[in-house]
Amino acid sequence: MNATQAYAAQSATTPLGPWSFDRRPVGEHDVRIDILYCGVCHSDIHQVRDEWGGSMYPMVPGHEIVGRITEVGSAVKNFKVGDLAGVGCFVDSCRECHPCKAGEEQYCEKGNAATYNGTEMDRKTPTYGGYSTQIVVDEKYTLHVSDKLPLDGVAPLLCAGITTYSPLRYWKVGKGHKVAVLGLGGLGHMAVKLAASMGAEVTMLSTSPSKEQDARKLGAHHFALIKDDQQMKALRNQFDFIINTVSAPHEYGKFLALLNLNGVMICLGVPPEASQVPAIQLIMGRRSIAGSLIGGIRETQEMLDYCAAHNIVADVEVIDIPKINEAYERMMKGDVKYRFVIDIASLKK
Amino acid sequence: MNATQAYAAQSATTPLGPWSFDRRPVGEHDVRIDILYCGVCHSDIHQVRDEWGGSMYPMVPGHEIVGRITEVGSAVKNFKVGDLAGVGCFVDSCRECHPCKAGEEQYCEKGNAATYNGTEMDRKTPTYGGYSTQIVVDEKYTLHVSDKLPLDGVAPLLCAGITTYSPLRYWKVGKGHKVAVLGLGGLGHMAVKLAASMGAEVTMLSTSPSKEQDARKLGAHHFALIKDDQQMKALRNQFDFIINTVSAPHEYGKFLALLNLNGVMICLGVPPEASQVPAIQLIMGRRSIAGSLIGGIRETQEMLDYCAAHNIVADVEVIDIPKINEAYERMMKGDVKYRFVIDIASLKK
Repeated sequence: MNATQAYAAQSATTPLGPWSFDRRPVGEHDVRIDILYCGVCHSDIHQVRDEWGGSMYPMVPGHEIVGRITEVGSAVKNFKVGDLAGVGCFVDSCRECHPCKAGEEQYCEKGNAATYNGTEMDRKTPTYGGYSTQIVVDEKYTLHVSDKLPLDGVAPLLCAGITTYSPLRYWKVGKGHKVAVLGLGGLGHMAVKLAASMGAEVTMLSTSPSKEQDARKLGAHHFALIKDDQQMKALRNQFDFIINTVSAPHEYGKFLALLNLNGVMICLGVPPEASQVPAIQLIMGRRSIAGSLIGGIRETQEMLDYCAAHNIVADVEVIDIPKINEAYERMMKGDVKYRFVIDIASLKK
Repeated sequence: MNATQAYAAQSATTPLGPWSFDRRPVGEHDVRIDILYCGVCHSDIHQVRDEWGGSMYPMVPGHEIVGRITEVGSAVKNFKVGDLAGVGCFVDSCRECHPCKAGEEQYCEKGNAATYNGTEMDRKTPTYGGYSTQIVVDEKYTLHVSDKLPLDGVAPLLCAGITTYSPLRYWKVGKGHKVAVLGLGGLGHMAVKLAASMGAEVTMLSTSPSKEQDARKLGAHHFALIKDDQQMKALRNQFDFIINTVSAPHEYGKFLALLNLNGVMICLGVPPEASQVPAIQLIMGRRSIAGSLIGGIRETQEMLDYCAAHNIVADVEVIDIPKINEAYERMMKGDVKYRFVIDIASLKK
């Protein structure tokens, strides 16, 4: 019953391949989820390849998990067998620190239990992610998923969706705001959809003219080329917010100039090296640069409910799991619109 | 009547010396101010020495001006002869852009008329600052000064005071907040006084143990040494705000780690080169780095009234104007507590 099929990396340099392991038995507060779909996040590649350091093997990646509940513990109150459910980037946290008590478990001061390439809060038991047939999770860290939306498109909401939704809510983005989205990938395409749905006027900033048509389809009202100095100049002092999804090296200063008085650039990507920030660009116009990390459980549920109500899902390309290594290669080239999602049925054959 | 005695720089490399020029006649909206005191700001040195580029000579520095009104134009409504008055960093602005209409003239999109080393809004007529016996200014850009406070200590409020007051108000700093002040100079000492007066718990961060006693006298509740790794480690995730007054080169990342969830580091100083910002430091804890520039006329008046009500002035060392070049040398060594102020009577002898 706990036997689990998975795809795992055995080291930083070998391709992912089949692996099996046992999930823990369902505890009184746990639910068991039969996984249906799992999104493929860029951070899966970084961690599989140990690009951030400290990777633990075997590693079963995957933190954009959607499935159906097959068993519930004796004390579980909010889920029942047969419910759709989701799991995001973490499966537990200390529950006692200031951020945890505030429902912002993503900022847990003790470090939460990452869904994979981490440990449970005992700091010993390794965690394994969603490239697997099932997962056992405390109900408090499990999300309700609506049956109104296609589940493959819902999976990426658990990371790409909440990562963009949370800052839009924290900074109260809405009608009357001009929002630029920098970078059109997994995060960027969700940022465009969500910001537009909240009533903001959205401009896509991209390096490639070929992305204009797609950006407009996603809901962007305007499009500008980053490399065109004339277009950039015309956009100075224009935006209340820039959602910066770029994780390639880039200078922040160039984009700060596009912010209006009190404008905020919210960084979601982590470039490999620290970026340059000229203080004068912040001081002139009382501008800010901020960061934001996924979202807490309460807000992730709010986001899923919002997406169900507004008919918003990620644009995905569904693959069978043997294609995962090829998918990684294509992601490195930016060749995906906009998220690969693994059909976990392909693991169960 | 318009003849004005002053001290001016004739080039980037010569010391300041006596110079005379004519102020404009008092227009219908103007007031004429007999200058009593003028504070000496670090930016005076930068501009006299053309360290920011584009300096115009002869240059009469000084934008922390306090004096008494000796003449008012026919349409002046809010000032009368005999009133105390102040002038800060700008003497006019476009009055039409979004920031000007919002009372944030410091962020005028067309560029306001700097009090010196600038031009009037005609972009031709040079402006001359407060190292002079009198100034003629539109009443809309003139501040009321209380007679309750010593005027020499009031002068620096027009720049150092408003530069620190404005961000404290914008970010609603008050009781329950933990605020760190980075750097104990002209700006830093005002930040400590003002933040403490607003009810915040203030920690001075400094490179020099010798500053602890002074910091506590100014109102700091705690003191920590930046170079002491143990002390810095103990302060991680502690502060809601850091008021960063440092204009020497420094890495922002080290200080970002001291911010609590949603904490903001507000930069008031402009290091000579762009600073490094590791995105991960912003993302973990949803931290921000922001900038802030002086304040608008309405807020500057609010600050002056607040300081009068709370008995707050700058700590100053009053000098006669022939000592100005020596004062610059001492400022370069940080040898002033905390602002030189010129007694303009020394220009009238």
